[in-house]
Amino acid sequence: MRDEEGQAPLEPPPGESPIVVLVRPQLAENIGAAARAMANGGLFHLRLVAPREGWPQSRAWATASGAGRILDAATLHPTLDDAIADCHRVLATCPRPRHVVIPVLTARAAAGELREAAARSLRHAILFGPERAGLEAEDLARCDALVRYPLNPQFSSLNLAQAVMVMAYEWWTATDPTPPRLFQTHKTEVATRGELENLMDHLVAELDACGFLRNEAKRPGMVRNLRHWFTRGEITAQEVRTLHGVVAELSRGRMRHGRP
Amino acid sequence: MRDEEGQAPLEPPPGESPIVVLVRPQLAENIGAAARAMANGGLFHLRLVAPREGWPQSRAWATASGAGRILDAATLHPTLDDAIADCHRVLATCPRPRHVVIPVLTARAAAGELREAAARSLRHAILFGPERAGLEAEDLARCDALVRYPLNPQFSSLNLAQAVMVMAYEWWTATDPTPPRLFQTHKTEVATRGELENLMDHLVAELDACGFLRNEAKRPGMVRNLRHWFTRGEITAQEVRTLHGVVAELSRGRMRHGRP
Repeated sequence: MRDEEGQAPLEPPPGESPIVVLVRPQLAENIGAAARAMANGGLFHLRLVAPREGWPQSRAWATASGAGRILDAATLHPTLDDAIADCHRVLATCPRPRHVVIPVLTARAAAGELREAAARSLRHAILFGPERAGLEAEDLARCDALVRYPLNPQFSSLNLAQAVMVMAYEWWTATDPTPPRLFQTHKTEVATRGELENLMDHLVAELDACGFLRNEAKRPGMVRNLRHWFTRGEITAQEVRTLHGVVAELSRGRMRHGRP
Repeated sequence: MRDEEGQAPLEPPPGESPIVVLVRPQLAENIGAAARAMANGGLFHLRLVAPREGWPQSRAWATASGAGRILDAATLHPTLDDAIADCHRVLATCPRPRHVVIPVLTARAAAGELREAAARSLRHAILFGPERAGLEAEDLARCDALVRYPLNPQFSSLNLAQAVMVMAYEWWTATDPTPPRLFQTHKTEVATRGELENLMDHLVAELDACGFLRNEAKRPGMVRNLRHWFTRGEITAQEVRTLHGVVAELSRGRMRHGRP
């Protein structure tokens, strides 16, 4: 999670991907930060409807942190109708209940619909309203569905770039194949049970020698507890070798100093 | 999706919820924006390890946009060990592969584990590293698992507040009961099939009268097409009333002007 590191030049994704439409955005910084969030989630197409400060604005490139190519390719539109004229379906992010009759999707459900639509080569737009006022009723009447993020109802005000971030993240994860949990093994290998047993044998022999396991009644349970602890995680071959060294050195220390 | 609107005062959630630990954060603005993202996802407990600019900083309260209460309650710690001393488990957000052997979770899987841990009253910390450098190897050696968000590998650099936003969003949605898709009906009611049939009868009668359906061979298909179109979405009773008026007025216009 860090800023402005060197990254490969951004390429537009193959095939259809949704168009992010910022409707009457107020601050250029937020347009740049939104572009960065788009890049994070693999969205590339940006359209701007009547940005309050005009366009282009260098401050947007400053906050885009390497996603400037999205801003370079962004198009400027005088009206929402102009921005969505070639789109087949239009979704509107909208945090607050409105007195309209229109389907309301979670961000995750919307991402699923967007993926289906992309597979059918339907061009989708996702609208994000102005920072303070949000989308107007006239904007919503042009949309097929609203997208509302499940968030703390006590505090549901998102800034513009964060709203784009959540949608871009859901768009990406809708087809991402990453397993929910994996064991990272860089340059190391998980120990075999044989390697672990060698370590247990070494440890138990030294514990017998120093008298730690002298209580015969408790001995099996104590050894079992140690074995449970060693097998709870996936110990690596390197860690087993280190622990052999630890046991050996501790034993030598005992012998050298004549303890116990 | 808008800024700084008036919101009810934030209350800490009941029961255990994860502690967000910002490790050596660089900019006070980012601490404030992170607090706002925490509030969005219902996280309340914030700990700061050695913030570069010192603490407190008024700029953090400015960017927190109403989540200042999280900053008010945040604690300051000289070291990571001090910040996590009372935690049972520690997760580290970490965008890049590291040469460590440790489980790696997606944000969604991590949110699931955090919810399970909260149900067992285990106190979890989630670490976020400094904006540029990220967490160090010594930090990671104190963690039970890494959390890596599935994102565009071409552009995976998140700003700090956006990294917190994704995790907070997943924490909230892990138990949120919102249905993926719902039909919003504010002050309006979906029309019954009887109301829709009345409209179809009215429309077809007028279309017969004006001669639009004079081709007897094509008539059934044309009526069926209209019926399909009217039943594709959930038309409301109000919309049916409006369309009765449209049909009536168009018919009167035809009669008044002697067309066709």
